[in-house]
This record gives sequence, structure tokens and C-alpha cells, in this order.
Amino acid sequence: MGVRIVSARPPSRTQQIRSFLRQYDLLAWIAWRPDELVMLSGYVPFWGASLLIYFADAEPVLFVPQIEPRDHIPAELHVQEYPWGDLKCSDPYSVLVSAVSKELVKARVEGEQVGVNSSASRISLPIQAAEQIPIPEGFAGQLSALIARPDAECEAAFADLYLRKTPEEIEAIRLANQVANVALQVFFENLQPGITEAEVAAAVESAIYRQIGRDGIFHSRGWAMVQSGPNSADAGRFNRSTGRRVENGDLVLIELATCVNGYWSDLTRTAAVGSAKDEVEQILAIVRDAQQAAVDGVRPGVSAGDIDALARDKIAVQGFSSFFTHHTGHHVGFRYHDPGFGILPGESAQLRPGMVITIEPGVYVRERGAGARIEDNVLVTESGHEVLSRIEGSKYP
Amino acid sequence: MGVRIVSARPPSRTQQIRSFLRQYDLLAWIAWRPDELVMLSGYVPFWGASLLIYFADAEPVLFVPQIEPRDHIPAELHVQEYPWGDLKCSDPYSVLVSAVSKELVKARVEGEQVGVNSSASRISLPIQAAEQIPIPEGFAGQLSALIARPDAECEAAFADLYLRKTPEEIEAIRLANQVANVALQVFFENLQPGITEAEVAAAVESAIYRQIGRDGIFHSRGWAMVQSGPNSADAGRFNRSTGRRVENGDLVLIELATCVNGYWSDLTRTAAVGSAKDEVEQILAIVRDAQQAAVDGVRPGVSAGDIDALARDKIAVQGFSSFFTHHTGHHVGFRYHDPGFGILPGESAQLRPGMVITIEPGVYVRERGAGARIEDNVLVTESGHEVLSRIEGSKYP
Repeated sequence: MGVRIVSARPPSRTQQIRSFLRQYDLLAWIAWRPDELVMLSGYVPFWGASLLIYFADAEPVLFVPQIEPRDHIPAELHVQEYPWGDLKCSDPYSVLVSAVSKELVKARVEGEQVGVNSSASRISLPIQAAEQIPIPEGFAGQLSALIARPDAECEAAFADLYLRKTPEEIEAIRLANQVANVALQVFFENLQPGITEAEVAAAVESAIYRQIGRDGIFHSRGWAMVQSGPNSADAGRFNRSTGRRVENGDLVLIELATCVNGYWSDLTRTAAVGSAKDEVEQILAIVRDAQQAAVDGVRPGVSAGDIDALARDKIAVQGFSSFFTHHTGHHVGFRYHDPGFGILPGESAQLRPGMVITIEPGVYVRERGAGARIEDNVLVTESGHEVLSRIEGSKYP
Repeated sequence: MGVRIVSARPPSRTQQIRSFLRQYDLLAWIAWRPDELVMLSGYVPFWGASLLIYFADAEPVLFVPQIEPRDHIPAELHVQEYPWGDLKCSDPYSVLVSAVSKELVKARVEGEQVGVNSSASRISLPIQAAEQIPIPEGFAGQLSALIARPDAECEAAFADLYLRKTPEEIEAIRLANQVANVALQVFFENLQPGITEAEVAAAVESAIYRQIGRDGIFHSRGWAMVQSGPNSADAGRFNRSTGRRVENGDLVLIELATCVNGYWSDLTRTAAVGSAKDEVEQILAIVRDAQQAAVDGVRPGVSAGDIDALARDKIAVQGFSSFFTHHTGHHVGFRYHDPGFGILPGESAQLRPGMVITIEPGVYVRERGAGARIEDNVLVTESGHEVLSRIEGSKYP
């Protein structure tokens, strides 16, 4: 683990948010993106149409549509409901904006003291995920009459709130990884010649959904994408499952996003089916070696660029650098891909205790009809790291 | 079926689009929402980061990120790729906007002759659906330098393009319904005391994902939500699956969204497990009766309000009108919920051949611990209707 670095634990969530608001002279933050709501309050929206005012000096107020289920809203949140439904209200968002305005006036907070996030790109999904969130694009415009649009620096500082997870959040991300691991067992157990990629992926997702009801799990969804043989060589550009049947000698790669109670795990495994050619096994061996080297290097004070180099150099010395076409990792936990610095060549940002990052080098060689990636979720601890996604006693890698 | 009404078939997709563009003096339309792309070109985006320029007088041009899979892009589309990936390009959207601008200049199309859709609310999902689409909110702003923001009337006319499906689109929606029906068999077969709602839902979704590779199916995903016993009484407000175990005497309701190759089906079934009390069976019987009455009334020239009344009146005469809390239906096919008029009380818009609507009355009675909804997808034909979601010879309702 190298030199032991003494470093502060991550501050509590409330401390982090209040310190951010103070720094930007804000008295309130308005949030509606699902991952923002989880990060600010632990509440994951069902419909994706909820809105939270987080006050610097008062209790937060949560607005939910009338049709929102109530049983998973944290008890300490003060809830106001607004009308919803085509027989009841044709423009619920205008009603919501009025209610938000009223609440700000009541708290004597002026528009220039209120912040809001301007991007909805790549945000997390609400529990009801069969269509994009129902927030109309004009809604930000409606809100803007109430709000000082924050500058890019303020938005970047808000994104930094995602980086250092508190002990409670780490436990939630650990649970998402445990559920993902149950499903990865299903992946390994299903790998046999003749099964289609989609059949394997379907079994994996099913194993995740079935966890609802166990261990306080009220929401558990997976997105599994399985690529076999020549299709695995595409896995550096996209992940999906086709109807191709797995063959003896294939590498089979699974990309697996898992969301449990609003917290995310992002994992990848690659396995050889039966006896693969040496030139195929070599790809998997190189990736294993590179991934382990990067994981071993994770500790507070190390730069993201240095972690990236640990993986990239291992791949380069084997002559495969042009086949490792993406980053080594990213932050994870409130989203499939949390905002924040990447684990990328030359990135000088340093790892801190409480950060959870993916380590996921890959090598994809079309000419050999094979690609491999291994991805774990790694917590930076005070003295080094802990791999959240490897379960002790598992018979699979 | 009542009086036979002679009515025009829906015009071809190209005719509909060109006629819309002419009506609003537009020479081009820029689309990037997944359902817009499917409707305009038959192409369903993988990442959700593709953009199409549909010209009134020239072939369309499709821009895709470098990492987009190519095998499901219709062969006749002219494709340009733009850079993507954190090792390659930090701001791909600026590159994309420049490329779009260049293409418009080349075609001698001025900004005020170009339309674009301003809302991303409730749109369809790309194939990669584990997070919201990666289009940044600022992107519409970047485009707006190139585009005359269309007025509300023009946007409404664009939404009308979703309403009349062509024969090819109807076949695609039929296929989505056939896949959904395979999964509904799994629902009925799994209904036994002791199984959890989430376990039933997981088996149903799995059956849908497994269809990839059959009959030209390259994308097949379901969102199944199962509510049993007292939970079924919530199904008028939200649909989800919990860890509750199904009991003898329960009503069990499944809400099922299915997307196959970019086209959607939206179905609901309700079944009684074992022997239910009369007051529970009554709810299911009323809903069956109301739903069949509304389906029977579907034909060209009838107003949506009249269809709604057929279901609503049946429920009212039984004294349950206050328990039917939502619309009778909506358009479906390019989305889980297509835009366009609802099947609602008082709606005067008339049904036309080529329209595909849901018919989905429901009755939810908390005091009886039971709720029921039955939902089919119904095509308006030239002489009446065809239920796309009932498969001949199926042993289940």
C-alpha cells in the first residue's frame, strides 16, 4: 500500500452542502435531478417530478406530485404536494413554480441568493424509468424568474459535492455492489456455449430486480449488456446484447449498471468460455494485470493521472496501448457516472478519503475477435483503499 | 361496429412530413429526441446523442457520435460522424453544431427556415437507457443561433405527425405488442401465492429482453410493474413492484411498457389469484366490461370524448365513478406515451385511420384492498378497429 497518508475523513453531507452555500453566498439551492435529490436528502424520486428547496438556515422543503408514493420519502423531510393528472391539472409546473416562489418569500430569500443546476445531461433515473423525466425544458425558464443562474464556477463546486461520500452513503453504495455481485454470479453460471448474449443479460437483470423486498431494498434495477466473441471487441465503443450465441473459446464481457435505492454500482467482468486461444487469453491476462496494478495504487494523495498511468503503462509495455481507447475510471455512486474529474492521463486532481471511483482498463482487438475490460468500484480510505465490488468468499473473480 | 365510415388511409411518412414543412415554410427540421428520429427516419439511436437534419427538398443527413453502432442505421441514411470520448474531444457538441451549420449553409437553408422541437419531457429512451440522454441543456441554446425557434402552433403541428401511423409503422408496433404478449404469458404463468411482485415483474422483463435475435429484433426491453392485493389499489397513482408476496384472493395488476426496435406497446392486465371475494371480483368485472365497451366503440370519425364516455359511463352506472381517476387512453407507438389528444372526457378530436390508442379504464378501491385496470393497444382501421395486443389463440385474456 506504500506510505500511509494521514488524511481527514469526509465531512458530513450537511457540512459539505452548507459550506458550499456559504462559499457562494447562497441561502438556498433548488434541486430536481434525481441524483441531486439523493445526494442532498437521501430521497430518490419515483416519477422524477419532485423538487427540493435546500435552505442554508432552515429545514428543506420537498415538493412532490400528488401521485408520488410516500413510503420512501425520508420521515424528516417536510413534504408539500402539488396537483398532477390530466383530469386534475393541465399545467402542474406553473402551480409548482408558484408554490416554490411562495416558500422563498416566506423564508425571505431573494432570487440572487438561490442556486440551481442548469444541466440535465447523463443524470440518474427516477424509479419510473421507462421514459425520460417529465420535467419540461421550459421549466428551468419558469424557475429562472426566481433564481440567479449560477455561474460555471458555482456549478463546478456543486458537482464537487458528489465526490466525497459520507459513511452512510458508502454503505448504500456497498449495498448496490453486493446486489450487483449476486447478479454477476448469475452471469458466470450462465456462460455456456449456445446461450445468447441477450439471454445471459436478461438473467442477470432479473436477479437484480428480484432483490426488492430484501434487506431494506425498495428499488433495485440493473442494466446488463453482454458481448461475446467478436462482439467483445466493440466493448470499448458501446455495450449492448445481441442474439449471438456464445461459443467455446469466446471472451464474454458484461457491463453492468446497478441502482439500489438510488445508489449506483458500475461493474464489468470478462470471462473466457471453455478453452480460448493463447492470443485471446493474453488480452484478458493483460487487462487483469493492468486493472490490479491501478487498484493497488489507490490511496489518498495520489493523483488521478498517476492511477491512470499504472494501468496504461502495464498495457503499453505489452504493446497494446492503441487498443486501450478510454479513461481508466470515473467517480460513481449517485449516478452510473458521477460528475467530477476522470481517472485520465495527466489529471492532477488527487484522491481523497470518501471518494468512490471505478478502475476499468480495457483492451479491444478486432483482429483477434476479442476484447476485455475489468471494472471495480474502489473506495479511497484514510490509509489506502477498499474494493467495494469484490465479495469475500465468492467463487468467481 | 355501427355505420361504416369511408375514410382516407394515412398518408406515407414522407408525405406527412413534407406537408408539415410546407405548411410552416420550413426547409429543414432538426431532430435529436429518440422518438423523433424513429418517426422521421426509422432509426433508433443507441447513445441518444445523434442528430438528424430532415430537409424538405433533399436527402436527410444523420450525425452520430464516433462510438455509435452502425449496423442498425437504415442503409439509405447519409451518415456523418463527430468525435466522442474523453481521450478525444472535450466538447463534442460544439463540433457537432459546427458540422450542422456547415450542412445548412451547403444546402442554402437560412436559420428562419429551420425548425426544432423545444421539449425533452417524457420522450422515448435511446437503446442505452441506464442514464438520461447525454444531450446537455445548453445544446438547444447552441443550436438556436442556427434556428428560428418554432412557435407553439408549429410544435403542436409537429406533434400531430405522431398520430397517424403508416402501414410499416403499424407492423412495427404490432411486433412490439407480440413481444409484450409473450411476456404477459409469463406473467399469468407465474401468478401463484408466495411469489413476490418483484419476482413476477423480473420474469416478465427477462422474457422481453430474451427476444433479441429473433424475427429481426435487435432491441427489446420491457418495464414491468406488478402490484398485488392492497398494492393494486395504488395502481391509479403509480405502478411499481414491491417485495410483497402474492396471496390467494388477490387482484394482481401488471403495467407493462415494451420497446422493440424503437416502437412501443403499453399494456395492462389484471388477474385474480385463486378465489377472490365477490367485492374484489366485482371490481375486475366492471373494468372488463368498461374496457370492452370502449374498445368496441373505436372507429374513424368518433370523438375521443365519446370513447372515454363509453368506458366512464359503464363504471358510473355501477356507482364507481370516483374510483376511475384517470384518462381512458392516449396515443402510443413512438413512445410509451405519444403526444397528441387524450381519450378524455369532452375531448372533441376525432379518431382517424392509422391512429393507435390505448384503452385503459381502471377502478381502484382502497377500502376493498383491490384495484384493476385492463389496457390494450387499438388500431383505428378504415372500417373500425383492430386490437393489436390480443393474440389469437392465447389461453390468457
